[in-house]
Amino acid sequence: MSLKIDATRGKPNAEQVALCNEMLNTPLENYIAEDGTDVRNYGGNDGLPEMKRIFAELLDVNANEVIVGGNSSLNIMFDFIANMIYCGHWNPSRAKFICPAPGYDRHFSVCEYFGIKMLTVPMTPTGPDMNAVEELARDPEVVGIWCVPVFSNPQGYVYSDETVRRLAAMPAAHPHFKIMWDNAYPVHNFIGERPALLNILQECRKHDYEDRPVMFTSFSKISVAGAGIVCLAAAGETLATIRKRISMQTIGPDKINQLRHARFFKNADSVIAHMKKHAEILRPKFECVFESFEKNFAGTGATFSKPNGGYFVSVETPPGCAKRVRELCKNAGVLITKAGATFPYSNDPTDTNLRFAPTFLSMDELKQALEVFCQAIKTAAT
Amino acid sequence: MSLKIDATRGKPNAEQVALCNEMLNTPLENYIAEDGTDVRNYGGNDGLPEMKRIFAELLDVNANEVIVGGNSSLNIMFDFIANMIYCGHWNPSRAKFICPAPGYDRHFSVCEYFGIKMLTVPMTPTGPDMNAVEELARDPEVVGIWCVPVFSNPQGYVYSDETVRRLAAMPAAHPHFKIMWDNAYPVHNFIGERPALLNILQECRKHDYEDRPVMFTSFSKISVAGAGIVCLAAAGETLATIRKRISMQTIGPDKINQLRHARFFKNADSVIAHMKKHAEILRPKFECVFESFEKNFAGTGATFSKPNGGYFVSVETPPGCAKRVRELCKNAGVLITKAGATFPYSNDPTDTNLRFAPTFLSMDELKQALEVFCQAIKTAAT
Repeated sequence: MSLKIDATRGKPNAEQVALCNEMLNTPLENYIAEDGTDVRNYGGNDGLPEMKRIFAELLDVNANEVIVGGNSSLNIMFDFIANMIYCGHWNPSRAKFICPAPGYDRHFSVCEYFGIKMLTVPMTPTGPDMNAVEELARDPEVVGIWCVPVFSNPQGYVYSDETVRRLAAMPAAHPHFKIMWDNAYPVHNFIGERPALLNILQECRKHDYEDRPVMFTSFSKISVAGAGIVCLAAAGETLATIRKRISMQTIGPDKINQLRHARFFKNADSVIAHMKKHAEILRPKFECVFESFEKNFAGTGATFSKPNGGYFVSVETPPGCAKRVRELCKNAGVLITKAGATFPYSNDPTDTNLRFAPTFLSMDELKQALEVFCQAIKTAAT
Repeated sequence: MSLKIDATRGKPNAEQVALCNEMLNTPLENYIAEDGTDVRNYGGNDGLPEMKRIFAELLDVNANEVIVGGNSSLNIMFDFIANMIYCGHWNPSRAKFICPAPGYDRHFSVCEYFGIKMLTVPMTPTGPDMNAVEELARDPEVVGIWCVPVFSNPQGYVYSDETVRRLAAMPAAHPHFKIMWDNAYPVHNFIGERPALLNILQECRKHDYEDRPVMFTSFSKISVAGAGIVCLAAAGETLATIRKRISMQTIGPDKINQLRHARFFKNADSVIAHMKKHAEILRPKFECVFESFEKNFAGTGATFSKPNGGYFVSVETPPGCAKRVRELCKNAGVLITKAGATFPYSNDPTDTNLRFAPTFLSMDELKQALEVFCQAIKTAAT
């Protein structure tokens, strides 16, 4: 088979991005935001009130704890870490970060860019191994942890209430320990209802740690991946420090795109209703993956996660097989994410984890990709 | 008079931003860029080819030397400096920057944020005092210079060919000396034709310094201030280092706004044609300022710049009067930029420079503001 199929990244497909053509192409009847701001001019660097309100509803925080950004949540996470270093809170030559793995490769490359040492802890179906996390947080050089609390990348796990409570309550030796709460998929369920998630900020407040969490979310996989709207939410000194940096750094985010989003999406309920359309498109693809894996993995020793939302299926091959599976797929023209990419320093100690991204493919491509992938699993396992 | 007039910032007025309503509200017939990219999806972090081409024409560089950004040129300048520090090229605890003054206050606050020491050199009608610049560049701790080469903020001066040649040719002791070439007003002439400016990158290449300049420009005052498109252009190692950071930092800029801009503006000639509409709106305002200052400054000792473009008129009061003039204006309800803001550390040694920003005001407001301002000049001078 001479295929050319790319299943490496969590990209929405053409049908999904077309769901927002109306938002992009409806003329704006006027350019004035709720607070009287002409969105075409300068002014305002933390977002329009109507867009803050939607984010506040989605993240269950107060609107004044939200700072609206541009179109890339990675960018505001990167900037947040840069700022922690510049304001002297973190010393990059000594700082260490807790990285639940398998995890999101782009989180890890941000740490690498800044020279922050990464400490791997195992992911479990209820979140990171909290015994390991609590132990590491006692190290005064450990400055933070990466978390994707809902439909974690790549396994699609959702943090349990106990995990959130322990993250909020645990002592941390570093005075500026931060939880990077990358809530990338809060409404991205394709099976069943939106999963419940305990509010990390409220939990932290109970223990006088309101400075600890920084929450991020994004419309990239709600509206359009190339031009969504992102935000962060935080409190206390954490929020104040970010505001200070932003006032030096930028003349403010694109307010026209914010107004388009706010007028199209209106509120969290209507966002959730819109996400049902995404679910209709994605569910058959994931079900096709699950069915194929169930049938073909039998007897190979390979296992897979079966998420109710998010963008990936995570596969565990027998030990020492992940690189080989990826190689076999590549030779047949099916690209999957590099083996190891889901671990800090691309170091998967048992060479078992693979991330499969079905969303961007057409049904036909997906079926071909699955045929190749499952055959590769069987061959490598043998 | 109980006025409430804000002439502090270089903001376009409502009539100017309305010139691009058509761009904002014309439905996109399709979402595919010249290179086949679906602008609604992920992918591409240095810009659409059609947008790069427009910038390349405006800055007279190759399209592959352009990286297209979001909507804030301040943001990409800030990031460039952050990157120079992170990659170890600049040591912020020792780095010094040459700051021609009067200059742009937001350049100075970026340096302050990073703890970079600022060294003031005088501005002249042909650019910074080049004898002073050449002398400072011999200091191995001096890492760069801020330049607004066309219609400098606030005086509206244009760098002469000799200034550009000397900046390109001068020896610099620091191996990573950079010229921050903030070409914010390249097509923003409201009187006469677009001013000629020697190409800094080409000049630097003649002396084997292609890594030296980083050029920035922006559509914020061409299309809409709240949602323009910005870019940087550079070469050699400078460009490579920026590309590397961007790949870690972001999933890429908003490509939909790029496509809107590229389809509306098409090429540099059509940008220049569009700017004639801005000129028609701005010229009467600046002429009104010039006429008022000419009439009222006589005998006060105050002088002013008379630019053919840009967003400001710079005023030199008699020594020790600038703060007093600003105070008098404020008491009458007319806000102008803080005295001193045009100097590093807000330190105008003779307390003489004031920046007047007429663009945002209606003709009526402008006339009232001028009456107050000129009276304040007379009072303070007396």
